[in-house]
Amino acid sequence: MTHLYLIRHGIAADRELYEIDEERPLTKEGARKTRKVAQKLVELNLKFEIVLSSPLVRARQTADILKSVGLSDRVEEFPPLAPEGEINFWLDWYRNWSQTGKESLALVGHQPDLGNWAEMLIWGDVRGALVVKKAGIIGISLPETGSPIGNSQLLWLSPPKFLLS
Amino acid sequence: MTHLYLIRHGIAADRELYEIDEERPLTKEGARKTRKVAQKLVELNLKFEIVLSSPLVRARQTADILKSVGLSDRVEEFPPLAPEGEINFWLDWYRNWSQTGKESLALVGHQPDLGNWAEMLIWGDVRGALVVKKAGIIGISLPETGSPIGNSQLLWLSPPKFLLS
Repeated sequence: MTHLYLIRHGIAADRELYEIDEERPLTKEGARKTRKVAQKLVELNLKFEIVLSSPLVRARQTADILKSVGLSDRVEEFPPLAPEGEINFWLDWYRNWSQTGKESLALVGHQPDLGNWAEMLIWGDVRGALVVKKAGIIGISLPETGSPIGNSQLLWLSPPKFLLS
Repeated sequence: MTHLYLIRHGIAADRELYEIDEERPLTKEGARKTRKVAQKLVELNLKFEIVLSSPLVRARQTADILKSVGLSDRVEEFPPLAPEGEINFWLDWYRNWSQTGKESLALVGHQPDLGNWAEMLIWGDVRGALVVKKAGIIGISLPETGSPIGNSQLLWLSPPKFLLS
C-alpha cells in the first residue's frame, strides 16, 4: 500500500512585493511555521522516500524544510506541480516509480491544484470541495494495482492549526 | 460559519461476545483511547454546543466521554445516527437548530454512515471513499445559507494515530 502525502507550501511574501510570482519566498513566519509542521510530521513517524516539489520558490523552500528535518533524503523538482499542472504527468511518473516497491512519497505544491489532484484520486473528478491550507497536509492511500484515479482513499487532511498544539 | 464534527465511536467489544449489537460497549482500551482523543480535542480548543449521539451503547459512551472532558455540556441521543440512518432527518433537525445562531456541533455515530454523510455534505453524493477510523474525527464547514448538501467543505479528517503523539 502506497501512502501519498500532498503538502501545500507555507505562507509566502505578498504578491505586491514580487513582480514574478514564481520567485516569492516563504516569509520568516511562514518558514518557521512550516518547520514546526515538519517537525510534527517527524514525531508522527512519517518518512518520504522522495519529495517531489513544484519548482516555484515557496514550494521548493517548503520541500527543503521537509528534507532538513529528516522527513526525506531526496527532493526533486517536478514541473507539473507548478500551478495548473496536469495530474496525468504525475500519473505517468508514478506508474514507473511504483514498480520500485517504494511506499511513501510527498508532493509539495499549490492550491487549488493539490485539492483538485486529491479529488481526482479519491473521487475521479474535481468538485473544488477539498482545500488544503498553507503548510497543511492531505494523506491518501493509493491502490495496490490499477489506476489510482477514483480508486484512492482519503486517510488524513489537516490544517497546521490542528498539528501545532 | 457552522463547524460540524463527525466522530466515530471508539473500539467496542467483539460481536461474538454480545448477542445484541446495539449493546456492545467500548472496551477498556477503547474507552481509554477515546478519552485521550477527547482530551486532545480540548487542547485544540474545540467546543461543541451540542453532541448528538447514535443511541447504540458504544456511541453513547463515546459521546459521554466527550462531555466528561468538557467538550460539551449537552449530549442528546439522535436515532437517525444509528447504522443506516438517513441524513435527511438530521438535515431537518439542523434547519431548526441553525436558526439559534449556534456554530459548533458534533455527531457521534458509525461507519460507513458517517463517511457517507460527509460525502453527501461535501460532494452531494456517496462514493464510499471517505472513511473515519474508530475514535477518529471529520471536520466540515457548513454554508451560511442554503442546503449544506454538496455545499460544505472538508476542513479536517484525522485518525486517532495522528492525534495521539
